[in-house]
Amino acid sequence: MDATRAQRLREQAKTLRRWHAGPELLVLPNAWDAGSARLFERMGFRAVATTSSGVAAALGYADGERMSRDEMVAAIGRIARVVACPVTADIEAAYGTTLDAKLETIRLVLDAGAVGINIEDSTHDEGHPLAEIAAQQELIRAIRALGEAQGIPLVINARTDVYLYGEGDAEARLAEATRRMNAYREAGADCLFPILVADAETIGALARAVDAPINILASPRTPTLPELAALGVRRVSFGGGLSRAALGATKRVAEELLTSGTYVRMTEELLPADDWRGLFGG
Amino acid sequence: MDATRAQRLREQAKTLRRWHAGPELLVLPNAWDAGSARLFERMGFRAVATTSSGVAAALGYADGERMSRDEMVAAIGRIARVVACPVTADIEAAYGTTLDAKLETIRLVLDAGAVGINIEDSTHDEGHPLAEIAAQQELIRAIRALGEAQGIPLVINARTDVYLYGEGDAEARLAEATRRMNAYREAGADCLFPILVADAETIGALARAVDAPINILASPRTPTLPELAALGVRRVSFGGGLSRAALGATKRVAEELLTSGTYVRMTEELLPADDWRGLFGG
Repeated sequence: MDATRAQRLREQAKTLRRWHAGPELLVLPNAWDAGSARLFERMGFRAVATTSSGVAAALGYADGERMSRDEMVAAIGRIARVVACPVTADIEAAYGTTLDAKLETIRLVLDAGAVGINIEDSTHDEGHPLAEIAAQQELIRAIRALGEAQGIPLVINARTDVYLYGEGDAEARLAEATRRMNAYREAGADCLFPILVADAETIGALARAVDAPINILASPRTPTLPELAALGVRRVSFGGGLSRAALGATKRVAEELLTSGTYVRMTEELLPADDWRGLFGG
Repeated sequence: MDATRAQRLREQAKTLRRWHAGPELLVLPNAWDAGSARLFERMGFRAVATTSSGVAAALGYADGERMSRDEMVAAIGRIARVVACPVTADIEAAYGTTLDAKLETIRLVLDAGAVGINIEDSTHDEGHPLAEIAAQQELIRAIRALGEAQGIPLVINARTDVYLYGEGDAEARLAEATRRMNAYREAGADCLFPILVADAETIGALARAVDAPINILASPRTPTLPELAALGVRRVSFGGGLSRAALGATKRVAEELLTSGTYVRMTEELLPADDWRGLFGG
């Protein structure tokens, strides 16, 4: 990587990390391609995240590391190429069964221009869906070291999938999520991401339980952004929500073509001409 | 290409060509990525077209052959991989300044799984925006021969850009468009595509002027699909319209995140869970 580019990524990483300290909630729209990323930046979002499920859908795959690592990295590269703001990438569990393989993924993702990543503690192993805490800590430490070695202080958003796969009652899950988040923080994570948590009480409890920013996946089931901020949440993302909404709108527009053969919805939904041309100067 | 695949593409090409004969209007939604293509097929569209402007926007480029040919071909490949229906590709003017270069593009596009193409008579040359008719006929004949040599009777939708770049009054343009469409038909085009024509009278006149199917770009300015069919139009596509509508909807959804910090629109727009999972079995 040339020095100018490394310098730019270093500054982006620092800026992205600083935004986790508030005071304003860091709202990260999840792009699924270059066009959506560029649109979000032009609208005024400070940074752009990616969505593994949205990128997978755009490229023709189910979520869950079904596309090749190269395709995933190329998608991140296309997004990072067209925005000036920091990009944080959803790389699932980093496409590897070994620590070395996962670190190689991180290297490629940094090269592609991301300055932040989500890293999951899912193993995609039915018997043991969640990684051992010590192993996940080792991974996070190694990622942190890799970023520092490359001179890019990568922002690590450590996701715990306790609420996706964890067992036990609400109290047990809260305890397990807290234990994991604190362990990941201790290993060097910048932000903790207890995915799928939706109720205000648990979100507030989790925000208080760790001495670090937490990221919440905002969805129809969660409180609003101002409410999340008031609960102590520092960062919010939307997973595949924006991608799914774009496809939902597409379906409604296309249905009208099949039924009445009119374009009322298409006409209403069209991105204004200035925005459309403004995306890539076309 | 293996024999099974060649056989499948041959059948798709024949089917796509047959649909140009009617009786029903051939309605081709223009996909910009694998997800949109798959969605359109699942909704019941008989075939899927691509859109150069939508594909370009998804990949981070302005329209007009700014992306590399390899990227364009890869995008077509991702779309063709995930649908069982015929795919017809918008390849602009075939990415080449020579006949050989254009034919190499056609070869790659066939390999990627398309069984139809749009081919424009724009030169992207300011002094002479439209190709010489004889040169365009030579190109169309060569494309026809290439498809036949490969055993895939490629469906050629010959676009004329008279209404985009042509000079003169309405009568002169109608005469020039007619002259070009008939010449392209004589050279072997299956369908003629006078892009940008929007008024019913001219559309009807063009449909009567050529002894072949015509394709109209449906837009907010054109008659509805049933009206186009009644005017004698056999095939309709939407260019970047569906892609632009998807981005327009995305903008509205994202604006709500920036203003009230709520997700009402996102929630309303979400592609239903069954459709979302059904796209790629995710």
